[in-house]
Amino acid sequence: MSEGERLTELAKRRGFYFPAAGAYGGAAGFWTYGPQGAALKSNVEDAWRDRFVVREGHQEISAPDVMPEPVFEASGHLDGFDDMIIECAECGATHRADHLVEDNTDIEEAESLPNEEVMDIIADHDIACPSCHASLAGEPVDNFNLMFETNIGPGTSSPGYLRPETAQGIFVEFPQLSEYARNQLPFGVAQIGKAYRNEISPRKSLVRVREFTQAELEHFVDPEEDEPPLSEVEDVILPLYSAESQQADDGGVEHLTVGEAVADGVVTSDWVAYYLGVAKGWYERIGVDMDRFRFRQHLPGELAHYASDCWDAEAEIDGDWIEITGFAYRGDYDLEKHAEHSGEDFTVFKQYDEPVTVERPTVDPDMSYLGPEFGGDAQTVADALEALAERNPEAFDGDEVTVEVDGDSFTVPVAETNFSVEEVTENGEHVRPHVVEPSFGVGRLVYTVLAHAYTEDEVDGEERTYLDLPPEQAPTTVGVFPLMDKDGMADYAREIAGALREAGHSVTYDDSGAIGRRYRRQDEIGTPYCVTVDYESLEEDTVTLRERDSTDQKRVSIDGLAETLERLTEGETTFDAL
Amino acid sequence: MSEGERLTELAKRRGFYFPAAGAYGGAAGFWTYGPQGAALKSNVEDAWRDRFVVREGHQEISAPDVMPEPVFEASGHLDGFDDMIIECAECGATHRADHLVEDNTDIEEAESLPNEEVMDIIADHDIACPSCHASLAGEPVDNFNLMFETNIGPGTSSPGYLRPETAQGIFVEFPQLSEYARNQLPFGVAQIGKAYRNEISPRKSLVRVREFTQAELEHFVDPEEDEPPLSEVEDVILPLYSAESQQADDGGVEHLTVGEAVADGVVTSDWVAYYLGVAKGWYERIGVDMDRFRFRQHLPGELAHYASDCWDAEAEIDGDWIEITGFAYRGDYDLEKHAEHSGEDFTVFKQYDEPVTVERPTVDPDMSYLGPEFGGDAQTVADALEALAERNPEAFDGDEVTVEVDGDSFTVPVAETNFSVEEVTENGEHVRPHVVEPSFGVGRLVYTVLAHAYTEDEVDGEERTYLDLPPEQAPTTVGVFPLMDKDGMADYAREIAGALREAGHSVTYDDSGAIGRRYRRQDEIGTPYCVTVDYESLEEDTVTLRERDSTDQKRVSIDGLAETLERLTEGETTFDAL
Repeated sequence: MSEGERLTELAKRRGFYFPAAGAYGGAAGFWTYGPQGAALKSNVEDAWRDRFVVREGHQEISAPDVMPEPVFEASGHLDGFDDMIIECAECGATHRADHLVEDNTDIEEAESLPNEEVMDIIADHDIACPSCHASLAGEPVDNFNLMFETNIGPGTSSPGYLRPETAQGIFVEFPQLSEYARNQLPFGVAQIGKAYRNEISPRKSLVRVREFTQAELEHFVDPEEDEPPLSEVEDVILPLYSAESQQADDGGVEHLTVGEAVADGVVTSDWVAYYLGVAKGWYERIGVDMDRFRFRQHLPGELAHYASDCWDAEAEIDGDWIEITGFAYRGDYDLEKHAEHSGEDFTVFKQYDEPVTVERPTVDPDMSYLGPEFGGDAQTVADALEALAERNPEAFDGDEVTVEVDGDSFTVPVAETNFSVEEVTENGEHVRPHVVEPSFGVGRLVYTVLAHAYTEDEVDGEERTYLDLPPEQAPTTVGVFPLMDKDGMADYAREIAGALREAGHSVTYDDSGAIGRRYRRQDEIGTPYCVTVDYESLEEDTVTLRERDSTDQKRVSIDGLAETLERLTEGETTFDAL
Repeated sequence: MSEGERLTELAKRRGFYFPAAGAYGGAAGFWTYGPQGAALKSNVEDAWRDRFVVREGHQEISAPDVMPEPVFEASGHLDGFDDMIIECAECGATHRADHLVEDNTDIEEAESLPNEEVMDIIADHDIACPSCHASLAGEPVDNFNLMFETNIGPGTSSPGYLRPETAQGIFVEFPQLSEYARNQLPFGVAQIGKAYRNEISPRKSLVRVREFTQAELEHFVDPEEDEPPLSEVEDVILPLYSAESQQADDGGVEHLTVGEAVADGVVTSDWVAYYLGVAKGWYERIGVDMDRFRFRQHLPGELAHYASDCWDAEAEIDGDWIEITGFAYRGDYDLEKHAEHSGEDFTVFKQYDEPVTVERPTVDPDMSYLGPEFGGDAQTVADALEALAERNPEAFDGDEVTVEVDGDSFTVPVAETNFSVEEVTENGEHVRPHVVEPSFGVGRLVYTVLAHAYTEDEVDGEERTYLDLPPEQAPTTVGVFPLMDKDGMADYAREIAGALREAGHSVTYDDSGAIGRRYRRQDEIGTPYCVTVDYESLEEDTVTLRERDSTDQKRVSIDGLAETLERLTEGETTFDAL
């Protein structure tokens, strides 16, 4: 069994995740998180909120999943958020055409090729339908928009879409959010929520799904003035797989500190470098194995047209590298698009320390001259004169001025333009912020953390499976068992479980089956500690405390048990030191 | 301004909530929670999870928002989840026909009338289109399904729907969830997540929206054996507005304890009564004003056909009673429907303490007799004999036995039926659990808590607005200000803010504007305490601690400030006692 397969088996059996609506055969790409998975996911989200929102001083919002069409006209998703689809004429199955090419030829990144070329390659290689094995040669390759469409209200006059990324819920509200930040840059707005992509071929359990959770931060910065606090992370070592390395025959991952990566120009955006440094420590905290982790730079062909530098955090599972986060410097692309489409102001007014007096050249062309002279072109000429005055006031220094409109030249006496230079006092300027975006896929993080935590060993001659999850992330921090359900042991154990719960621990009480089986059950869901109440407990008020990874056991006092567990889970002491 | 209007104004100005995608004119019924609203909503959800999941020992899951069609064929939403719609021929606007009737006549509950009758009433009263005032007489009244529809995957062969309630994500996974509970009843599964209803006329800000958050608990119980722990809540006093009171001319709210309500048969389900008791205390905890609160029983006409008793928790705002929770005893309706449609087993196998020997009558009719005798009816007759043997074995006591099939009688010699009674040992039986469902609308809870917290008073001759939110629910628990941004006060205040944050408090640092304005800002978002750093702080390590509701101020030591705030917010001490 592959790593992914045995994880999927454990995930279903122990309540981490399983295909949704299985009673009806399910729908590919939709997963339900069971009790353990929902708790783990929630713990990952809390850790993210703690690090990327609270500690960074950002704010969190919650926007709707369904958004009206104009939002996606502006964002570009309506026109450009497509995958290449090919339909089998024989069986009707649909496939991602670029994936077929990648799976059946040596070509990589087929996504960046034109549809016609992909169609030709499929014909040349006589690639067959993976479902029925009929030839796909000659079948058209089309664009398929990945957004789920619906209608808002009765009828079809108001199309709506399930957001394909949580980010748009932040961008579109920038004018309002900027007010909450009192129009002071920089400020960051985060959101944890669902996003939806109608994938043609969902696969790899939680990796390519149709409904998923994103944790996105949009950090709005003044590109002229704001600098990230690089010093806080400059010594963090980053495993970097640069575009250059990827293109070189013998390239590999380089280990550079954040400081070095910036100084050497490997990471070109200081802001991106800052977040790579912050994120590195966070991945370690939630249990990503750093030996199976890298930051990979986007190749030039892969880079979104608006992004100047983009890095993915990738985790290795089953020999594949899976993107778990994208770090992008998006410039002012998003805010500019929404400003253009909505006609609203997506800027921040930056007040100067002191008012500034500037010279502003203006024209006020005499239309009673331009009209008779240029007829239907008069207004266009007037507009061109205005633009020229702003751009190049020196052009008005002579007696005549010439403007070009659609290839034609028009010459006008300067006197008829009423050119003048006014002195204007300005208190500030409108700045369109740039956006730095770390965008995390929560399901993929959960999947990675589980895959990297999955461990098999041998205990007392028997094979054992356990998850070595960090205590902070584990769905349950302590399992409490009575050795047997008699002589008051169960009542005492329930009382201890209640007290530990009161103290803030996540507790499971279990009194069913042999004690060894109960330990295994907790091992498989990654519970770091178990407490067993036995006959000695009744007499001496002590319990057996057992550590997951070593399976070592110690007798500890019930008095102070909650604090002992707290110090253990927070890393303030070790089991050996007890 | 109405209570709702002034709340909506505050909510937008201070970042609680505002209409989504306003830059594009928005889409009715969709709201974005700003930083304060998202925090308040999240606090309400955490309090719910603490009370209804953790303390009750239930489990929480997270299922997809998009679900395939068969789920809603089974649940009944595809056929029956409709509102009455009428379209104006003049302007094309669509309206809820039953609401038009209720708004323009004395008729209540128009929803329960047939469409034709509603159409007639509209004609008789010549009700006009609220948008363009044209007459709606003669326009047809149709059913409009409230589910948002979309397509899963390419093409239209797999319709999917945005779930109209989170509950279905639990019911449909019962076979799997029951395994996680090791097939032991009772067990409860909860979910907090989005639900969607394509309302014809969204209104009243967060009350009637198209996308909302539900917190639902499905408690699966053995109807024969399981009893709620009523003793834990029997003395809780419930404000009950029974169906009987609603129908009586002079009826009103009765105040009964849970114990009395059960004993008097006012609340017929013990389980519902238990959850009314639990919920009552929880509403108080999150800040619902108990003087503006009641539990209202569904009227017979209002009751869903599957529910035997149903109560709504209602809160009063602007003189309207708003449903914030529904408590229903749903019987086995949901599991039975999913079992029927999916063909899967939606039961729990209940093991007997000891195996039981039962007599099982069986038949094995001789088809070589039945075939020639009854022709095409032979198999039907055989099935009828089998059913009869199970139902009434005495019918086989004589020489002949007669069965009725579709009105025809068929008589068969008992010898040809091979009737016999076998002794069978049974280890247990399959039980279809009943479901008790408390279903909370999180947005309506947030709206209610805000409306009930909204307070105006006068401080030093000036009008003041503040939210008297319980500290546990407040988006921010403490605001930290330097008196002025000089002489190190700002640095010291930032240091204190950081330390309080480390200690787990939700902290806002604010150094802009006059100190009075900063207090007002925190008052308006319901921050219970503010800390001001002044010159004295620099010398004596004390700060001014200010209480929101009284606006009283005290000097307290910085040493121990985090603990002081914790004891205050947890109600372990009072401001006066400091």
